[in-house]
Amino acid sequence: MKTSFNHIQWKGDHLLLLDQRKLPEVEEYFKCLTLQDVCFAIENMVVRGAPAIGIVAAYGVALTIATEDFSSPTQIKEKVLFACDRLALTRPTAVNLFWALQRMKLSVQKESYLSVHDLKSSIINEAIAIEEEDKKMNLEIGSLSIFLLKGHLSVLTHCNAGALATGGFGTALGVIRYAYDEGRIKTVFVCETRPLLQGARLTAWELNKDNIPVTVITDSMAATFMRKKEINAVIVGADRITKNGDVINKIGTYSLAVLAKHHGIPFYVAAPSSTLDLKTSSGDQVCIEERKREEIEFFNGKRVTPSGVSIRNPAFDVTGAAYISAIILDTGVYYSPFSFES
Amino acid sequence: MKTSFNHIQWKGDHLLLLDQRKLPEVEEYFKCLTLQDVCFAIENMVVRGAPAIGIVAAYGVALTIATEDFSSPTQIKEKVLFACDRLALTRPTAVNLFWALQRMKLSVQKESYLSVHDLKSSIINEAIAIEEEDKKMNLEIGSLSIFLLKGHLSVLTHCNAGALATGGFGTALGVIRYAYDEGRIKTVFVCETRPLLQGARLTAWELNKDNIPVTVITDSMAATFMRKKEINAVIVGADRITKNGDVINKIGTYSLAVLAKHHGIPFYVAAPSSTLDLKTSSGDQVCIEERKREEIEFFNGKRVTPSGVSIRNPAFDVTGAAYISAIILDTGVYYSPFSFES
Repeated sequence: MKTSFNHIQWKGDHLLLLDQRKLPEVEEYFKCLTLQDVCFAIENMVVRGAPAIGIVAAYGVALTIATEDFSSPTQIKEKVLFACDRLALTRPTAVNLFWALQRMKLSVQKESYLSVHDLKSSIINEAIAIEEEDKKMNLEIGSLSIFLLKGHLSVLTHCNAGALATGGFGTALGVIRYAYDEGRIKTVFVCETRPLLQGARLTAWELNKDNIPVTVITDSMAATFMRKKEINAVIVGADRITKNGDVINKIGTYSLAVLAKHHGIPFYVAAPSSTLDLKTSSGDQVCIEERKREEIEFFNGKRVTPSGVSIRNPAFDVTGAAYISAIILDTGVYYSPFSFES
Repeated sequence: MKTSFNHIQWKGDHLLLLDQRKLPEVEEYFKCLTLQDVCFAIENMVVRGAPAIGIVAAYGVALTIATEDFSSPTQIKEKVLFACDRLALTRPTAVNLFWALQRMKLSVQKESYLSVHDLKSSIINEAIAIEEEDKKMNLEIGSLSIFLLKGHLSVLTHCNAGALATGGFGTALGVIRYAYDEGRIKTVFVCETRPLLQGARLTAWELNKDNIPVTVITDSMAATFMRKKEINAVIVGADRITKNGDVINKIGTYSLAVLAKHHGIPFYVAAPSSTLDLKTSSGDQVCIEERKREEIEFFNGKRVTPSGVSIRNPAFDVTGAAYISAIILDTGVYYSPFSFES
């Protein structure tokens, strides 16, 4: 089972990223030659989605050492640690970023017994492994869809938890792809997901590209389609899942979870196990990124909110475990009450 | 108590409308010289908001007879009835349109005993009366705010139920203006209101113009600010209120009502009594306008949803009476269970 595009392409001496800012109008790749390019890509959402950010950050580390000559493994280690520290500052909320950087840091601990050449290979291979493992986890998540989506259902998703947000295939969309392939999906409702419209621009684009029927609605319409019984289940991804099962995900997720509960509709979260943050006991302890006001104030250069008024722009929200019917990880389906262990 | 702008200006031989499509960037008036101009203005949302649509439609009728010479009152009657029939086709959901047109039709029934000159004056005066009465009703609605908004509150509103949606002052914003003047409002949260952004573009503009503190959020953020107890009450307008107290209003209203109920926050609806539809027993019998897909597919000419996918675009939703804490009409504050009588 494959998607019809490959949005992260490691080329040995550079990294190509499908520029998600330009979709769906233009399919164009953003070329990263330096650490700075990779930081820019993450900060400005050329690439976004918790698992994809982790993968790209790992390649960012690989990129800083791939084309340079080093006289000692210690030099490589310094460069890698510097890159990890810089990449850790790009975005605060998704835990996969820190998880991937931690793996990259560990990969350089072998500096005491590897040659320069072998250490470089080992670091680059670690980044490749992070991507490959993520793809594998996505397929495992998808294969579990049989336990949750039964019948012939219309499901709602939010933002993009698809191939574009991961190494490929997708988490929430991985579940949907699997279920669709097996004839269990009628249509996929997608909330457009303000302010950056990842639902309309990215999820609709990638489902349409793979010929899965999709219906775009504004975020404010979900409740009405739930009330009319046109939505049978909600499934979203996650940027971080805390020990107690609270889910941090794109702003609007909590709203959908409350609405789903009110209408008696199951609410599912799908994520790779790299999204688990077992060091944090509950969602309210997580730093929620507040992005710049211009994302709401302007649209494509056109002012849509008067100057001089306040704007709030939290990029994520916290959905309490009590609203979640099940969490699907690559390791299995988990039901409330959640208590994840390492 | 006045607002600092006058968005509907009857000039005797033409009608000036503040072009709401161009706010907040440009404050420009759209000149209506003909019935067609007025129909265009309503259909394309140069003017919107249930009471304002009724007022402008009444002026549209007045405009068709104001500058023409007639040889008999019967000619005037024909022209008026034709205009009413055409204007009734502009938008289906707001009941104030049909209410205003009904009043204009009745005003021409005097054709048997009035001269051409007096009949013309009588029709034009009826349109002016509809506007003046609406302004008066808005002030009466606002004055009732003392019964609902007590303390020093942050309130949330949706879309625009302000001066721009009425003859002046506003319904939901009328209540807010009154309460703010009396020191009972800390800040006004405004949902941007996709797809046409009436909250960000219009409500933020008019509150800011009158120096009332406003914070714009995306529609999907309301739940999070409710959860954090940053919102103490929700107040919206209505496009139609059925006999049992169901409220038809801008898409997203039902979502906010469910979320408010879930978080224990009062949910208020403010409207002039011309919004009551006593012929319809409940909300699900009302025709909900589905507008063109382009409103969601494109933004300011830029494609944001891929071509070839389905899009749904209902402009309104139905909020069941059970979700509404109180309805504020010019005739008083009504509490559940509602049963409106003529």
